[in-house]
This record gives sequence, C-alpha cells and structure tokens, in this order.
Amino acid sequence: MSISNYDSYFWSHRIRDLRFLIAAPKEPMQKWIKSFRRLAPQIPLDIGTESPHPDQVVCILIWGDQGDIFSKFKNLKLIYSMGAGADHIVWNKSLPSHIPVCRIVDPQMAFSMSNYIITAVLNYHRNWYHFIRHQKEKEWMQYDYPEIPLRIGVMGIGHLGMDAAKKLQYLGHHVIGYSISKKKANFPTYYEDQLDEFLGQINVLVCTVPLTKTTKGLLSLKLFSKLKEPTYLINVARGKIHIEKDILTAIEKGILTGVCLDVFEVEPLPKESPIWEHPKIMITPHNASFSFPVQGVEQVIENFRRVQSGEPLLHQVHLDRMY
Amino acid sequence: MSISNYDSYFWSHRIRDLRFLIAAPKEPMQKWIKSFRRLAPQIPLDIGTESPHPDQVVCILIWGDQGDIFSKFKNLKLIYSMGAGADHIVWNKSLPSHIPVCRIVDPQMAFSMSNYIITAVLNYHRNWYHFIRHQKEKEWMQYDYPEIPLRIGVMGIGHLGMDAAKKLQYLGHHVIGYSISKKKANFPTYYEDQLDEFLGQINVLVCTVPLTKTTKGLLSLKLFSKLKEPTYLINVARGKIHIEKDILTAIEKGILTGVCLDVFEVEPLPKESPIWEHPKIMITPHNASFSFPVQGVEQVIENFRRVQSGEPLLHQVHLDRMY
Repeated sequence: MSISNYDSYFWSHRIRDLRFLIAAPKEPMQKWIKSFRRLAPQIPLDIGTESPHPDQVVCILIWGDQGDIFSKFKNLKLIYSMGAGADHIVWNKSLPSHIPVCRIVDPQMAFSMSNYIITAVLNYHRNWYHFIRHQKEKEWMQYDYPEIPLRIGVMGIGHLGMDAAKKLQYLGHHVIGYSISKKKANFPTYYEDQLDEFLGQINVLVCTVPLTKTTKGLLSLKLFSKLKEPTYLINVARGKIHIEKDILTAIEKGILTGVCLDVFEVEPLPKESPIWEHPKIMITPHNASFSFPVQGVEQVIENFRRVQSGEPLLHQVHLDRMY
Repeated sequence: MSISNYDSYFWSHRIRDLRFLIAAPKEPMQKWIKSFRRLAPQIPLDIGTESPHPDQVVCILIWGDQGDIFSKFKNLKLIYSMGAGADHIVWNKSLPSHIPVCRIVDPQMAFSMSNYIITAVLNYHRNWYHFIRHQKEKEWMQYDYPEIPLRIGVMGIGHLGMDAAKKLQYLGHHVIGYSISKKKANFPTYYEDQLDEFLGQINVLVCTVPLTKTTKGLLSLKLFSKLKEPTYLINVARGKIHIEKDILTAIEKGILTGVCLDVFEVEPLPKESPIWEHPKIMITPHNASFSFPVQGVEQVIENFRRVQSGEPLLHQVHLDRMY
C-alpha cells in the first residue's frame, strides 16, 4: 500500500494533534527527514530529543544513544530503530517496557550487507591484500598466493546473515550457519549449545549477530580458542560483540589469520588504536550497510497504522531476547 | 568414466609405441606431469619441446609460446591447450590445420574466474581501495564513499563469462552481456553489431573474450569512446585484447574511472610500465584462474580416446573463429 492511500481513510481521521519525533546523528537523520516530509507531509515531525508538544509525540524514530529520551514523552505508542539493530534502544535505561519497539528490515540493506561480506570474504580467498602490496613493490607473484579454500561459518543467520550465507553458497563456497534458535537453510546449521561444533569446522567466521546480553564480548579469546584452524574473522554486527585486545592477541598467536572489521568498541575508532595500522586488519568506518530512508519511513508509517488499528506489528523487537 | 576403466579395453590394445608430450613453463607444468603420471601411467610422457621418438608423439599438451613446435612431430593426432584459452596455439605459425585442437573447459576454472571477477567488481562497488587508503591515514570516512550502483556489462559470455554474469546477477546486480553469436541468458544479451548499444548502457565492463583476430586490440580508445558513462574496466582475458596506452589515456580523460587487470600486453608486466604505480589501476599477475591438472588430464585422455575411436571431440577449438 502506498502511503498516499492512507490519506483518505486514515490520516485525516486518526491523526489529530499527533506528532512524530526523529532523534539521530546528523547523518543519517537529514535523509530520513527529507523522506519523511515527502512521504508523510501530513504528520508534524520534531527533530532532536525535544518537542514543543511532548504529549503529542506518539512515535520516535531513533538511532544511536540519545540519553534519557523516552521518559520525556508520556503518550508514546511506537519506538522505531532507524536500522537493523535495536541494541541502542533496548540498552537504553529509559525505555518503557510497554511500548512496542520495531526495527527496519529491508532487502536493500541485505543487498548492501551481503556485498560487503562477500567483498571481505573474497579479498581473503583471493589474497587481494597481498597482491596490492606486491603491486607496490613491482613484484610479479604469479604462483605465490594460491586461492584459500574456504569453509565459511556465518554466526547469526537472521535476515542479513542468511542472505549473505545463501549468496556465498551460490558462488560455490562451503557455508555453514549458527544461530541461537534453530533455522532451516540449504546448508548445515547449528544452534544453541552447538557453537563449539560450528566453530570447529570453519576457517572464515562472519559475525552478524545482534548485540544482546549474550553476545556482548562474545568474540573473545575464549571463543577463538574453539577454532580448530587458523581463521579469518569478519565482524559487521556491533563492536561491543568483540574484544579488540583479544583479536590482536589471537592474530599474534596465529589463531586468526586476519580480520575485517566494520564495527568497533568505540566509534569512530580512536586514533591511538593499534588496529588502524595493523597489517592483518582491514577496517571500514561502520558503513557495511545503511537503512534506506524511503523504505524505512514506509515501514514506520505502516507499523504506526498497525498500532492504531490494533494489528500485529512487523519486525517487532522482542525485548527479552533484545532483538 | 574413470581413467582406470580404459585399461582393460583401450590402453592395452590401442596404445603401443605412442607417446604424449607436454610443453609449458615450469609452472604449471610440474603439477600437470604429476597428475598425468598418476592418472595415466601407461602412457610415456615427454617433457619439453623435444622427444627421443618424435614420430611416436601423438598428443601435445601445450601452454604459452613454444616456438615452431608442431612441425617436429609428424604423427600428431591431438593438440591440447592446458587452459581455457587456445590463442597461444591458433596464433602459432607451425600449427597444422588438419590436427584437432582442444582446450580445457572446467567448472573449477569458472569458480576461480568468477571469484576473481566478483572480487574486482565489488571492490569497486564498495570503494574498497579508498577505504584501504583512508585506513592508512587514520581517517574515519563513514559517509564519504557511498556504494556505486552498478550496471555491469560482461563482454564474452562463454563458459567463464556466463558463470560470472549469472553469479553477479544472483547477488542482485544489474547485468547485461555481449558476445559475437547470440546467447540465451536470464539477463539482456547483445550480439554481433549491437556492441555500441551494449557499451552505451554500462558503467562496469568485464572482458572475458578469447583472443582472436577480431578481439586483438579491441579494448582501445575507439571502443572506450562508445561508453556513455564513466566506466570501471576489468580485463581477465588476454593482454593483447587491450591497448595499455589507450587505457591510461582513457583514465586521464575520465572515460574510465579505474581498471583491474590480470593480463598484460607483455607478461610479466615490465618494471618500467606506469601501470604498476597507477593509483587507479589494480593489477594481479595473470592468476585470475588456472586450469586444474586433474580435471585437465582427464579431459585430455578422454578426448584422445575419442580421437582414436572417431567420436566427436569435447571443447574443440574452431580454428576459423580462433576459439
């Protein structure tokens, strides 16, 4: 249903003296505001963490740590993460437990994330970073870096992880998956207490799990020690899922052959971090995938309509499991 | 059919005083000799361009320019390229026109080649080289290099090009193809005199055509001028298909946004070539894909059996079209 369809039956009748609020860093907020005003011009939109009419604010779109935001708005009906992760909301101490929280689930986002993961995986498979270095040295190393046979383990086969896993399998690579709950797939999957079994079979570990109480600090020396083979690590989930000093130690010990990180314990990555200059670590500035404002605003509007109509919500976050 | 099956009905009866010869650079020859001796120990194998019994040599496995080799062997029945390309054979002036020439067609080779092409394409799509540079400068460029929307044109949709094109399409990218003869595919294809139409629609050009009289020097300023948009070029076919000074000019003019080359007019690429240090050119030392000796030797043996039995050959090169 296009949003304009709402006009006739919905917005004119149900929205009166209601406002939405958007609280996010400048990027990506500007694009979302633009999309929101184009797609839903009927709805007054407040920007930032304050509103001139706080009691009219019924829906918050939020990204990142916005402090004690939720307690300011007494009539909230919906809280919306502007990305795939909702950790920044569920970890917020001012979050009221009775307000539904939703997150963006978007095919475009999976497209981006999978492209990123496949780039990271294939650069390792094809020894691309070595060839970049040898080009600098004008060295013709034709037979020196044979392709690395991959056994890829995708940890976290939700919407994003599953898309990447399927695509890597289609490319002809060996893929297995792990997630907390049992998942069906065309490749072997492991779940619950089968993590060690999963880790024992791989030489590339792709992390796409949400940040929860269980996954905080999960990528640690303790986990790396379960790997039976030197392994390449890719983390595109959240920085707080890994322990950076443990990653550095694991590389030193030869447990990890190299690492590609899009996320960090502290972002932007502090200038003094040894990660910047580490020859076996490739980093990108938390841009593996962004949510797309047009699809995002459409999902917010649709879910708000569902709240108002008492229908089941799409992509609702389970506050107990934290994603 | 496994090769051992031949023993009982074929080799013991049909091969007597017959020899094969392998002429190739040290790499990849050593692996092929090993595979050959393991898979076909019954057949005497000569190494290099000479044989103690030249009149017994019935099959030559060959890679690269081996000079006036064919005139030395009067009883040849089969000439075999050890790779997907047979240009090194069909351009050889000593090639007798009545001896069948075959080439290796191998799913493993397509797997390698597609991984290479996808790596090259996605590194461009995701601006990976920029992020490598910014990591060196410790710059956190989160929003500065948005993904580049791709319209990929694969020129040469034979066994290898088609595999890469299908996979790129599966990943969600926009793909079109061009080849000399009409090809069926799940993406738009162009052929014969539709090259300009094809070139007018793309911003990534992947070259996988064989080296023939028609394709020699094809990737020239003349062809690049048909591109309607700044385009990224990937050549994994043969170096003599492109003109390196035209590539450099096209980058300078902004017609090409960047280039990834696995092949060169002269290989190894001479140290004095400006390509080594060009910031917009990524190079690899002609290793996008190798033929696999086990599968290769099996194909040679099977085709020699077919020659002896008068059956149609697999993967025969058409000498008139040169591939």
